[in-house]
Amino acid sequence: MIHPNVRIPASASIGHGVIIEEGVQLGENIQIGHYSILHAHTIIGSGVRVGHHSILGVKPHHSPLIREVDQQISPLRIGSNSTIGHHVTLYAGSTMGQQLLIADHVHIREQVEIGDKTVIGRGVMIELNSRIGKQCTVQTLCYITGDTILEDHVFLGPAVAMANDKYMKTVAIAMTGPYLEQSVRIGSHATLLPGVRIGARSMVGAGAVVTRNIPADTVVMGNPARERGM
Amino acid sequence: MIHPNVRIPASASIGHGVIIEEGVQLGENIQIGHYSILHAHTIIGSGVRVGHHSILGVKPHHSPLIREVDQQISPLRIGSNSTIGHHVTLYAGSTMGQQLLIADHVHIREQVEIGDKTVIGRGVMIELNSRIGKQCTVQTLCYITGDTILEDHVFLGPAVAMANDKYMKTVAIAMTGPYLEQSVRIGSHATLLPGVRIGARSMVGAGAVVTRNIPADTVVMGNPARERGM
Amino acid sequence: MIHPNVRIPASASIGHGVIIEEGVQLGENIQIGHYSILHAHTIIGSGVRVGHHSILGVKPHHSPLIREVDQQISPLRIGSNSTIGHHVTLYAGSTMGQQLLIADHVHIREQVEIGDKTVIGRGVMIELNSRIGKQCTVQTLCYITGDTILEDHVFLGPAVAMANDKYMKTVAIAMTGPYLEQSVRIGSHATLLPGVRIGARSMVGAGAVVTRNIPADTVVMGNPARERGM
Repeated sequence: MIHPNVRIPASASIGHGVIIEEGVQLGENIQIGHYSILHAHTIIGSGVRVGHHSILGVKPHHSPLIREVDQQISPLRIGSNSTIGHHVTLYAGSTMGQQLLIADHVHIREQVEIGDKTVIGRGVMIELNSRIGKQCTVQTLCYITGDTILEDHVFLGPAVAMANDKYMKTVAIAMTGPYLEQSVRIGSHATLLPGVRIGARSMVGAGAVVTRNIPADTVVMGNPARERGM
Repeated sequence: MIHPNVRIPASASIGHGVIIEEGVQLGENIQIGHYSILHAHTIIGSGVRVGHHSILGVKPHHSPLIREVDQQISPLRIGSNSTIGHHVTLYAGSTMGQQLLIADHVHIREQVEIGDKTVIGRGVMIELNSRIGKQCTVQTLCYITGDTILEDHVFLGPAVAMANDKYMKTVAIAMTGPYLEQSVRIGSHATLLPGVRIGARSMVGAGAVVTRNIPADTVVMGNPARERGM
Repeated sequence: MIHPNVRIPASASIGHGVIIEEGVQLGENIQIGHYSILHAHTIIGSGVRVGHHSILGVKPHHSPLIREVDQQISPLRIGSNSTIGHHVTLYAGSTMGQQLLIADHVHIREQVEIGDKTVIGRGVMIELNSRIGKQCTVQTLCYITGDTILEDHVFLGPAVAMANDKYMKTVAIAMTGPYLEQSVRIGSHATLLPGVRIGARSMVGAGAVVTRNIPADTVVMGNPARERGM
C-alpha cells in the first residue's frame, strides 16, 4: 500500500502492512514499523525511526464542535535522526526537530513546533499551536494545552496538567496557555492555570497549583502555589 | 476480512485491512480508517467517520479479578454523523449519540451512554455504567469513573479525575460515582470523590479536591475544596 | 508473518495480520488478537489472551537522551492464564505473573516485575525497574515511576502519580521511586514524591501530596499530606 509516486530509498526498512500516501518524502536510513500509516506529503528526515501502529501527518478533523483550523495546513516534518515510538499519532502542520525522542502512545496536534533533542515522554498529549524549545524534557502523561510556550531546557515532571480557557467556554475569548521561560522545572502532577508566566529557572513543587505569574529564580509549592524556601 | 453477511453500502469508504465481523450494520456515507476492527453486531449510523487502528464493539473481559458484567450485553451503537478518532477502543453495550466527537486514543467501557453533540477529548477513559448528557465537553485525559452521571452542558477541563469506591476495596459496597448537574464546570486537574453531587451551574477551580456535596451556583477551590468568591 | 521456526500449538487462536518473530514460545490454548506483534523470544504462558493491536517484547530504544539500559535484556515473559488487553505495549526484560489482568492501552517498560493476580488498569504507564506485588490493584491512568516498589495487596486509585527524581535533572543522583508496603491504599489523583516510604496498611486521601515518609497504620490527607482522623 505504498503510493507509486513515493520514492523508497534502498537504505529504508519498511515494516509489514505500512501505508504510505502520495507525496511522502523519505530520507536515507529510515525505519518504519509494522502497520504504521504515513499520510500524504509527510516529510521524514534521514535516520528517523518510527515504531509500530503509528499514524503520521493526520489532517485535522473538521467539526462544528471544535475550534476551526487553517485549511491550508502544511505537511508534518520530522527532523533527521529523531525517534518516534509505537502507537503514536502526529497531526499535519507540526514540525519536529532533529535528534528528538517522541515516546510511545504520544499524541500531538497540528501547528506544534518541538525543538532539537527534546524528549516527549510516553502518553503525553499536546494540543494545537504550542511551541516547545530545545533540549526540554516532558515526562510521561503530561498534558500540554493549546497556545503554550516552553522555552529551551524546560523540565516537566510526570502528569503535569495545564489549561488555556479561563472561563471554561462560558465567554468567547482568545485562549492562552502557560508561558514557561528557559530552564523552568515543574514537579510531578502540578497544575498550571491559563496564561500564567513562570520566570527563568523557577521551580514548581510536585502537586502545586499555579494560579499567578511567578518571577525568575523562585520556588513555589502548595495549593494555591506560594513562595517557600527549598 | 469482511464477513460475507455484512452489507457494505456503495457510499462507504473502507480502509485497508479493516475487519468487520458478522451482523455489523453500516449506514450510508460512512468512512472506516485502516486496520480498524468492528466486532459482531456493532451498529454504525449514517455519516459516521471512524479513524485508523480503532476497535469498536469489544466484548468485556470476563475475569475473576474485576466486576462481573451482564452476559447479554447489547451491541455498540454510534449515532449518525458522529466522528470517532484513531486508536480508539469502544466496548459493546454502549450507546453514542449523534454528531458527537470522540477524539483519538479514547477508551470507553460497556453500558455507557453519551448524548448528542458531546465532545470527548483525546485519551479520555470512561468506566462502565456512566451516563453523559448532551453538548458536554470532556477535555483531554479526563478520567470518568464507573456509575457517574453528567447532565447536559457539563464542562470538564483537562485531566480531571474521579473515584467511585470510598473504601478502596476494603468493604463490599455499591459503588457510586460523582453526579454533576447541568452546566457544571470543573477546572483542570480537579479531583472528585465518590458520590459527591455538584449542583447546577457550580464551578470547581483547577486542582481542587471535592470531598463534599456542593449546592447550585457556587464556586469552590482548594484542597479540600471550599467556597470562595470569584 | 509468522517466523518459520515458531511452533504454533493446534489449540492456539491467532488473529489476522499477527506478526510473530523468531524464538517466540507459545503455550497451549492461547489467543492473540488481530494485528498484534510478538517480538523475538517473547514467552507466552498457556491460557494467555492478548487483545488486538498490542505490541509485546519491544526492545528498549537506545538514545543518548534517556537512561541507558542493559544490552543483554532477557525476554518478556507472561505467566499462564493472564489477560493482556488491546493497544498495549510491553517491553522486553519484564516478567508478568499468572492470572493477572493488564487492561487496554497500558504501557510497561523493561525490567518490571508484576505478581500473580494483580490488576493493571486502562492506560496505566509503568517505568523501568519497578516491582509490583501480588493481588495489587492499580487503577486507570496511574503513573508508576521507575525504581518503585509496591508490596502485595497494594491499592492505587485512578490517576495516582509519582516521581523518582528529586532534583529534576539538575543533579546526577541515583533515582528512587516510592516504596509502598503491603496493603497500602492510595486515593485517586494523589501524588507521591521521590523516595517516600509508606508503611503497611496506611491510607493516603484522594488528591493528597505525600512529601515525607508515613508510618504504618496511618491516614494522611491534604497538600502537603498530614495525619488526620478518618
